[in-house]
Amino acid sequence: MRIYDIILKKRNAEELTDEEIKFFVRESLEGSIKDYQITALLMAICFNGMTERETATLTMEMAKSGDMVDLSGIDGYTVDKHSTGGVGDKTTLIVTPIVASLGGKVAKMSGRGLGHTGGTVDKLESIEGFRTSLSSEDFLNQVNKIGLCVVGQSGDLAPADKKFYALRNDTATVDSIPLIASSIMSKKLAAGSKGIVLDVKTGSGAFMKSVEESEALAKAMVGIGKAAGRDTVAVITNMDIPLGNAVGNSLEVIEAVETLKGNGCEDLTAVCIELAADMLTLVTGKDKEKCIEMAKGAIADGSALNKLKEMVREQGGDPEWISDTSLFPKAEYNYEIKAETDGYIGYMDAEKIGIASLMLGAGRNTKEDELDFSAGIILKAKTGDGISKGDTVAVLYSDDESKFASAVQKFNDAMSFSDFPIKKQPLIYSVIR
Amino acid sequence: MRIYDIILKKRNAEELTDEEIKFFVRESLEGSIKDYQITALLMAICFNGMTERETATLTMEMAKSGDMVDLSGIDGYTVDKHSTGGVGDKTTLIVTPIVASLGGKVAKMSGRGLGHTGGTVDKLESIEGFRTSLSSEDFLNQVNKIGLCVVGQSGDLAPADKKFYALRNDTATVDSIPLIASSIMSKKLAAGSKGIVLDVKTGSGAFMKSVEESEALAKAMVGIGKAAGRDTVAVITNMDIPLGNAVGNSLEVIEAVETLKGNGCEDLTAVCIELAADMLTLVTGKDKEKCIEMAKGAIADGSALNKLKEMVREQGGDPEWISDTSLFPKAEYNYEIKAETDGYIGYMDAEKIGIASLMLGAGRNTKEDELDFSAGIILKAKTGDGISKGDTVAVLYSDDESKFASAVQKFNDAMSFSDFPIKKQPLIYSVIR
Repeated sequence: MRIYDIILKKRNAEELTDEEIKFFVRESLEGSIKDYQITALLMAICFNGMTERETATLTMEMAKSGDMVDLSGIDGYTVDKHSTGGVGDKTTLIVTPIVASLGGKVAKMSGRGLGHTGGTVDKLESIEGFRTSLSSEDFLNQVNKIGLCVVGQSGDLAPADKKFYALRNDTATVDSIPLIASSIMSKKLAAGSKGIVLDVKTGSGAFMKSVEESEALAKAMVGIGKAAGRDTVAVITNMDIPLGNAVGNSLEVIEAVETLKGNGCEDLTAVCIELAADMLTLVTGKDKEKCIEMAKGAIADGSALNKLKEMVREQGGDPEWISDTSLFPKAEYNYEIKAETDGYIGYMDAEKIGIASLMLGAGRNTKEDELDFSAGIILKAKTGDGISKGDTVAVLYSDDESKFASAVQKFNDAMSFSDFPIKKQPLIYSVIR
Repeated sequence: MRIYDIILKKRNAEELTDEEIKFFVRESLEGSIKDYQITALLMAICFNGMTERETATLTMEMAKSGDMVDLSGIDGYTVDKHSTGGVGDKTTLIVTPIVASLGGKVAKMSGRGLGHTGGTVDKLESIEGFRTSLSSEDFLNQVNKIGLCVVGQSGDLAPADKKFYALRNDTATVDSIPLIASSIMSKKLAAGSKGIVLDVKTGSGAFMKSVEESEALAKAMVGIGKAAGRDTVAVITNMDIPLGNAVGNSLEVIEAVETLKGNGCEDLTAVCIELAADMLTLVTGKDKEKCIEMAKGAIADGSALNKLKEMVREQGGDPEWISDTSLFPKAEYNYEIKAETDGYIGYMDAEKIGIASLMLGAGRNTKEDELDFSAGIILKAKTGDGISKGDTVAVLYSDDESKFASAVQKFNDAMSFSDFPIKKQPLIYSVIR
């Protein structure tokens, strides 16, 4: 078998066999296939696509290229969630305690933030003492004990994905449905849960800018999950504007806690109930209506909040910070953005707001950057809201006063104002099973 | 400027600017653009093509990436020819003496054979003492003195082409009109002649298998030549069967000499007259009919043969070998292929015949292989010829008797026989100016 022939086949829009795909993944990692051959094949895939079978085989091989997490020691139904990434997306902090409080077993590996999107691991680390790195034994024990553990990725999960992704990132081959789907799903398959709920973000703050693209990606991922024997559901949700009002690590944890206390804003609460209910349909086998009711109940009776406290305690944080969020350190400086005219909030560019937050210290440009956990943005008004001249539109926070000038400029660039009310976009576009 | 954006642009079927193409060629050679980025762009070019302007700019930058041969010291009109490569293609040995004998200045760099096609440099070296490596001063002096010099490529011509070609060869991106055209023409532009005649081979023994593809390639190359201020003509000629009757180094030199003596076979003579006449139209400005007449005259009056003798003498060979080709060493062994039935020669696969010749010792599998100059094949019958059982179809020659078994098998595999006469294909399809 020669990689030359495999590239030529895909260039000629022919379907690759399972053996050819296995050879490609294996020999790419072993180095007998060169990087310049990998990128040629990836570019040909961008043009000619992959069938459902090809994509599923590619994903499975990428998953099997490294460690496969063994969750068989967990008693109960294991369920994972994944978001394709957005601005202000703190859903994991809300959804996983809801699901765990209702019997789901959530053994979750999360990422760190890079660029305009944040990462759950960073957010959790804004709670003093919280450990996101556990031995696999402690990880499994905690899931068995309280049903919930969220840690950073450990071990060597899907190294083929790591290699391919780095090359794609340098060769304009990121944007391809089979390649995105296999990248995400290889890690989810390796992470071992039986059930997977995918939150596919769509809009200005998301990787996928259109609903059509998002649905195509969602279908590809659900297809892969099912082919691999996992129960998989995808939800297409809006990321044209940030989710909720808080952007930044501790600001988002505080908003998540408020949401679990029943004081969350409408959009964030609705998306979290949807995701939790989808996970619960897999865990319980009950119908969606019933699962929505259960999820709402777990907020109303405080059991989800208690589950979050339990996790914080188990992983070394002080649960008092959850009971009383005023214990989180505050940023030293803040800056209020005021409306300069009467009217309505028009377009908000979620990606630019994410970058403004990054500039305040909440995010990373490179993997090595240090975070300012208290930095970020609280939105006081969102698309469609009426405002009067002088109203506070947003408050920016940072420990470094010198960062405000450029962040304010970026934030203003992200906003437009309108004389007329703007129609709000749907929050949840569709659910694909 | 970032290579990422350039790849993305081409992936999106947008036209690259001259600055972007210059950046790509320069930084690819300097190494700041990585091989895996080069191959991604080359694959995108295979899918989305290049405009005439893009192709011309790419070619010019590749030409300028290394030495540009300066022929300004040559008194007269410099003219070059290039063949896209075929089996039994000894036209350079015939055409260049004709043109030089009629006043054209031929300062030609030729290649060595690799795979199933031979190279002019190897053929000339079958003449004992013939030097194909000259200083550039001696090269120019000889052209000024006798109008003709054929040497191996020296200096660092189009190193960007060398780099791109090696990568294309490993990534199934060879087969792309703009990439093939820029590869060939970058070396021709760097070689410095004012006039360029391109012999674009089409058929089973050629790189381009169809006339349509060949014409597209010819048009692309003529466009590049003109954009670079060179007088350029392309001729599409048949390479479905080997050209002439001889395949192999000294066997082809002997056939070339016989052709210059007026004893050449019909197909070879016709193609050589066509190519010589096209070169002469550029050199003399006279019309084609007149140039054909002149070319025929140079064979008839022996002046072309004398020009070849002059070149052999100047470059260290014994011109007596040209007067009396029996001086060439003969292969120690030969093997006659006999017809096993009455009928007609049907299909001949020129590429396979080239490989059979290579197997006899006339060619190279790798650059390091040593040649057996006297090895090769003399065809006694070609497509469409009637044969009787027991007739000799071809004679195979080699100094190594052990090589016959596999070469005979390959040769037989290249031939088919027919009960009915086969219509001969055109020899010359079209001329593109």
